[in-house]
Amino acid sequence: MSILVVGSIAFDTVETPFGNVEDVLGGSATYFSTSASYFADVNLIAAVGEDFPDEHVAFLKEKGIRIEGLQRLPGKTFRWKGYYDYDLNQAHTLETHLNVFEEFKPSIPEDFKDSEVVFLANIDPDLQLSVLEQVKKPRLVACDTMNFWIENKPDSLKRLLSRIDLFVINEGEAREFAGEYNLVTAARKILDWGPDKLIIKRGEYGALMFGGNSVFSAPAYPLEDIFDPTGAGDSFAGGLMGYLANTEGGDAYRQAIILGSVMASFNVEDFSLNRLKGLTLKDIHKRYGEFKSLTHFEDLQ
Amino acid sequence: MSILVVGSIAFDTVETPFGNVEDVLGGSATYFSTSASYFADVNLIAAVGEDFPDEHVAFLKEKGIRIEGLQRLPGKTFRWKGYYDYDLNQAHTLETHLNVFEEFKPSIPEDFKDSEVVFLANIDPDLQLSVLEQVKKPRLVACDTMNFWIENKPDSLKRLLSRIDLFVINEGEAREFAGEYNLVTAARKILDWGPDKLIIKRGEYGALMFGGNSVFSAPAYPLEDIFDPTGAGDSFAGGLMGYLANTEGGDAYRQAIILGSVMASFNVEDFSLNRLKGLTLKDIHKRYGEFKSLTHFEDLQ
Repeated sequence: MSILVVGSIAFDTVETPFGNVEDVLGGSATYFSTSASYFADVNLIAAVGEDFPDEHVAFLKEKGIRIEGLQRLPGKTFRWKGYYDYDLNQAHTLETHLNVFEEFKPSIPEDFKDSEVVFLANIDPDLQLSVLEQVKKPRLVACDTMNFWIENKPDSLKRLLSRIDLFVINEGEAREFAGEYNLVTAARKILDWGPDKLIIKRGEYGALMFGGNSVFSAPAYPLEDIFDPTGAGDSFAGGLMGYLANTEGGDAYRQAIILGSVMASFNVEDFSLNRLKGLTLKDIHKRYGEFKSLTHFEDLQ
Repeated sequence: MSILVVGSIAFDTVETPFGNVEDVLGGSATYFSTSASYFADVNLIAAVGEDFPDEHVAFLKEKGIRIEGLQRLPGKTFRWKGYYDYDLNQAHTLETHLNVFEEFKPSIPEDFKDSEVVFLANIDPDLQLSVLEQVKKPRLVACDTMNFWIENKPDSLKRLLSRIDLFVINEGEAREFAGEYNLVTAARKILDWGPDKLIIKRGEYGALMFGGNSVFSAPAYPLEDIFDPTGAGDSFAGGLMGYLANTEGGDAYRQAIILGSVMASFNVEDFSLNRLKGLTLKDIHKRYGEFKSLTHFEDLQ
């Protein structure tokens, strides 16, 4: 099945304790699509400027990502500049230039309107809603967001939440949105706003899924070389949704979260999409097995 | 098999967002012993003052804890006063009165010198070492510590580490001791100082075990009502060592960590030992099963 994703394509300038890069390919839709492309067909909706080089378009195509929904607008591509200290869970933004993203009105090619699975990456919740309204009969809809929208458009976000199945959010954002420090209480409150399931991303502490009276705790892969966490959340969502696009049933969510964690763990091993782009299914399955070893314990005797 | 534990017995005055208590029974040895008493015989080494009431001694006895090594010294019992904000991972100390603890010279009753398993709870590493030297032929030795000793007696601590099997420490302390932010790197460095295994406690994020070329990630139990985290680390260690005292073999460590996490999760549900003291093995096994459900996922199809 195919996944429709709407989100950003960006040029990132990033500094971490381990190095720095300038104007490299990034953006939520890019990370999501590349990660998901290993598991499902991806229909991409995004905007770039006149400065977006053909090689990046070629890269997306090469990954099998359908780019009919990629708008090239007058002006420059969205740019983000930031850094991370040793606490790699926390991105520090230095500059954000929305550029063409400011004028972005997502319009869904006719062909994409039958997408069964939809991922609304972190953009203005009103835009997320406008995209969702253009898709005919999605089986599974998920979205992400960020503190900026929680603070500035909480009502739009809640309107969106009432129409989605799966909400993927950071730990700090979950606490802020619900106004509750305790995560279990926060999760209950957010689930009351609509989604069936809530996945809380906790960076190097893994992820928690709430919903349907059960909780699932997924670890993060303990890495010695975390190069650059940029895009980890969207790589996670890509693996997650990619797996869910092809698998149904209750436990699929748990496998999907582990697969998302696998993709995120690869992504942080290098800058930009350098690590993500060259993976094989064998690499992915091997690390999935390592997640199994990482968490396995026997019943009590 | 029996466990020898040396540590503190205290009167705690604690405030959390959910209430407060004054001069209640606490201390690392108390939490450890009570928790371990569900799984093994416990030989307690600690000191109290003249103000320590008989009812607390009776409580320890009732739990089957052997108190021949409990010294009653002139003066007052150790007192700790602190509070927790909503971030319950972080204790804030307001007052520490060492009292009789200042003069404490642990001496091991003849009967206890055959203990097969030893847990050196967080006290001066020189005292930990002096206790260890009095035990004849322990099969398994573990210790805890805190930032105060890491900062003030790093050499004593390293001397101790060269003689122990299992080191149990907080995440922040592991980073500080190793001088490394990355936990995998920090763990490798600490293991080089002697212990076979290292368990890093991460509060509401669970625990990680390093050693023997494998890593185990244990979740914390997602609780809506965390009343008071005081003693969680020592309750964890009690369940951990209690299980290890009776079980050998590689995977026993993983089960032991989960059992430790079970005991810690009960402990934080109420002040002092209120929750821990009234448990049944059925309660404990039920929650162990819940940890299994919390972390279970299937292989990929």
